[in-house]
Amino acid sequence: MADNKQFVKEIADMSADFPQWYTDVVLKTELADYGPVKGTMVIRPYGYEIWENIQHSLDRRFKETGHKNAYFPLLIPYSYLLKEAEHVEGFAPEVALVTHVGDTELEEKLVVRPTSETIICEMYSRWVHSYRDLPVLINQWANVVRWEKTTRPFLRTSEFLWQEGHTLHITSEEAKEETLKMLEVYREFMQNVLAIEVLVGRKSEKEKFAGAQETYAMEAMMLDGKSLQAGTSHFFGRNFSDAFDIKFLDKDGTLKNPYQTSWGVSTRLIGALIMAHGDQRGLKLPPRVAPVQCVIIPIATHKAGVLDKAYEIAEVLKNAGVRVEVDAREQSPGWKFNEWEMKGAPIRLEIGPRDIENGQCVLARRDTQEKSTALLADISSTVLSLLDEIHNNMYEQSKAFVNNHIKICSNMDELTTAINEQNFVKTMWCGCPECEAAVKAATSASSRVMPFDQTPVGDTCVYCGKKADKVIYFARAY
Amino acid sequence: MADNKQFVKEIADMSADFPQWYTDVVLKTELADYGPVKGTMVIRPYGYEIWENIQHSLDRRFKETGHKNAYFPLLIPYSYLLKEAEHVEGFAPEVALVTHVGDTELEEKLVVRPTSETIICEMYSRWVHSYRDLPVLINQWANVVRWEKTTRPFLRTSEFLWQEGHTLHITSEEAKEETLKMLEVYREFMQNVLAIEVLVGRKSEKEKFAGAQETYAMEAMMLDGKSLQAGTSHFFGRNFSDAFDIKFLDKDGTLKNPYQTSWGVSTRLIGALIMAHGDQRGLKLPPRVAPVQCVIIPIATHKAGVLDKAYEIAEVLKNAGVRVEVDAREQSPGWKFNEWEMKGAPIRLEIGPRDIENGQCVLARRDTQEKSTALLADISSTVLSLLDEIHNNMYEQSKAFVNNHIKICSNMDELTTAINEQNFVKTMWCGCPECEAAVKAATSASSRVMPFDQTPVGDTCVYCGKKADKVIYFARAY
Repeated sequence: MADNKQFVKEIADMSADFPQWYTDVVLKTELADYGPVKGTMVIRPYGYEIWENIQHSLDRRFKETGHKNAYFPLLIPYSYLLKEAEHVEGFAPEVALVTHVGDTELEEKLVVRPTSETIICEMYSRWVHSYRDLPVLINQWANVVRWEKTTRPFLRTSEFLWQEGHTLHITSEEAKEETLKMLEVYREFMQNVLAIEVLVGRKSEKEKFAGAQETYAMEAMMLDGKSLQAGTSHFFGRNFSDAFDIKFLDKDGTLKNPYQTSWGVSTRLIGALIMAHGDQRGLKLPPRVAPVQCVIIPIATHKAGVLDKAYEIAEVLKNAGVRVEVDAREQSPGWKFNEWEMKGAPIRLEIGPRDIENGQCVLARRDTQEKSTALLADISSTVLSLLDEIHNNMYEQSKAFVNNHIKICSNMDELTTAINEQNFVKTMWCGCPECEAAVKAATSASSRVMPFDQTPVGDTCVYCGKKADKVIYFARAY
Repeated sequence: MADNKQFVKEIADMSADFPQWYTDVVLKTELADYGPVKGTMVIRPYGYEIWENIQHSLDRRFKETGHKNAYFPLLIPYSYLLKEAEHVEGFAPEVALVTHVGDTELEEKLVVRPTSETIICEMYSRWVHSYRDLPVLINQWANVVRWEKTTRPFLRTSEFLWQEGHTLHITSEEAKEETLKMLEVYREFMQNVLAIEVLVGRKSEKEKFAGAQETYAMEAMMLDGKSLQAGTSHFFGRNFSDAFDIKFLDKDGTLKNPYQTSWGVSTRLIGALIMAHGDQRGLKLPPRVAPVQCVIIPIATHKAGVLDKAYEIAEVLKNAGVRVEVDAREQSPGWKFNEWEMKGAPIRLEIGPRDIENGQCVLARRDTQEKSTALLADISSTVLSLLDEIHNNMYEQSKAFVNNHIKICSNMDELTTAINEQNFVKTMWCGCPECEAAVKAATSASSRVMPFDQTPVGDTCVYCGKKADKVIYFARAY
């Protein structure tokens, strides 16, 4: 297969140069392209359809848990950013500023939202008056801008698409419960939709969001052993509701500040699924978000009836809810096989004159490369159950990969070796920021999360050797 | 009904002060609120859900006509704006400019997109090489920023949400066909989803989009007799593909510029449905986009079984695909009746102890205020067919209103009277921009569209009295 060789050559060797492999996959499968302004990206139709599928899955989950969507303005008065001290420190250096309209200078410069806590709190302070107005459970789908020095499509871009939930609650307990509930919504989504195993837990003080009291996160392990922070859920306490003077009259007749949360995931998730599932042939898309779940390749299209049959099968599958496409282009079947392997379609269905005679077709799985013969009579149920099987297999592979790449370490020698061998490290930490920083300085691995299961894996801090009671993961991270 | 009077009083008299009525309805039904930066708006959950329903309806139509969604960057190099002469003239005065990131001044200032022709053409020039790459049929859902002097929620805001389709074609005929096809998609959507009659046709030179060769539009008549341009579809010819050097190798071996279209509708449609359907009680939402199609008001909730029955009916309706809500708040039924009339829910379902005994409930229509009794046994089919009936009635009302408010005029006296009496004017125009401008100067009515049906309604220009062959609508406009 000369075709095949040539095709594979176009994507860099993932074991030799993982970053280049990633870039090749993103560009050559037409998920995204570079925008004209440094650090921006264009999300092309094939990539955007994955995002739409992610949106639909998550949006349904948000609504089932009682949230409604709203839309807040893109442009925020600069003065708002200054109201919460940690928040401004975290975001001020990287915000894009609108200073002029046409030739006219504005009286106050405006921030292109890097996140919407400030403007949303301002509006909440106008809307919330009584305990009857709580809880407020609002989510926003939007674009945000953060000027990053080093950028890569999906992983870190000057502008990205995301959702940000912002909720207010009467009690601290209720707000904490919301924080953890949404983290669990994310985790379940990662497992059951993206087929990615994640580690969830709490961030250290150093790694938490600017302005939050507690940040929880899910960390996904990429095939190069690095971690990708895939989503976060923050408990703010009353930091922002105090700064923005959000007050409600409680049942006891006193004015109080409500407790607040926010939580978000972004187009970064597309980066996560590329690097958690891909292989040397290119993308391997989880079936539940794949734009094309089953691609139909007609064989010997010049023979009468082949193309008609292909479209007929497509119609049957479409009616069963399968996202299906017939590739009727002029290229050879071999070329198309390679193209769709690179583009990661979970199932390839081949149909030729002899198949039609026998009332069957060939199904090729992207995940295992296995081929099987299927009867056309019950093609819908076969394809639907195969999609589930592929999903389950991809998730099991992801889980096995994560489990195989977590090393329990009790000292810096072990930790350094494990990190250099592209693993996550599970270890004990005394809790002091100096030790955390020292690990990073020595290995460039940062603390990821402290898992909810805090069963000790030792009793001394991996760095200072003093008594330690915190179980924590370290990894190099995107 | 003291309650009722007090409620109604909160909304300004629509016959005496239509603009204030509009503002009251928008704010009091919590569709939107003013944002902190002048001219911006916050779309609150009740308003955003209407937008989501509009999006779903349109997005399905775009996909059925072969379009795919993509996402292009918000920030555009200023130099791009300069490439098409009419385009820069049209947009430069009202664009928001990013000049700094944090404390650092950018080398080139960036435009916050007012529309995306320029950046999309830049990307198309990189992607399109051969006739095989055409047509390109891409749509984008996005926010855009245009600094407007006079703003009103939904109608004209510094930032708004919209969709913009941008397509490329080999031939002029194919591009013109696309332009008209998408105009027809919009018109059909207005009729079958928003229940609004629109006038469609071609814009005059003066009213067309900056950079377009031809602009087509649909104009909706508001209850005050003013026109709202509700959507546009542009044929660009090769203006932009030439300016941005988009070239494809045609079958004949020569390099050519493709022909281009763009088309868009925005959150302005929410303004349209408020002002096309509302009444003194508030909103009257078209069923197919209403966030709550049927609100259930339990009567005598302290009686055993009432609330349970209300939720049971809600579950039945929800499973039948009805957007339903039980209003179980502590207020009186009368208060809730008024609240939901103001909020425009198409059907109110009342259920009390005696209804339950009789296996029935009361249905009240928002459009006609009629009440009827319905059997609980087949409540789903009754509600579903009533929703269709309400839709049809609202559309027929809209059509009748438009037909009653189009006056055929043959001179300026007639035209001035008709405009002052809150009508659209259908008349003849010689085609010269001076006559068009003179009509506007004299009456503040602008030319809206030249309808496709050009059956003459006279033979001389309404302004200059010279021979005229163009049928055109004039109206005051938002």
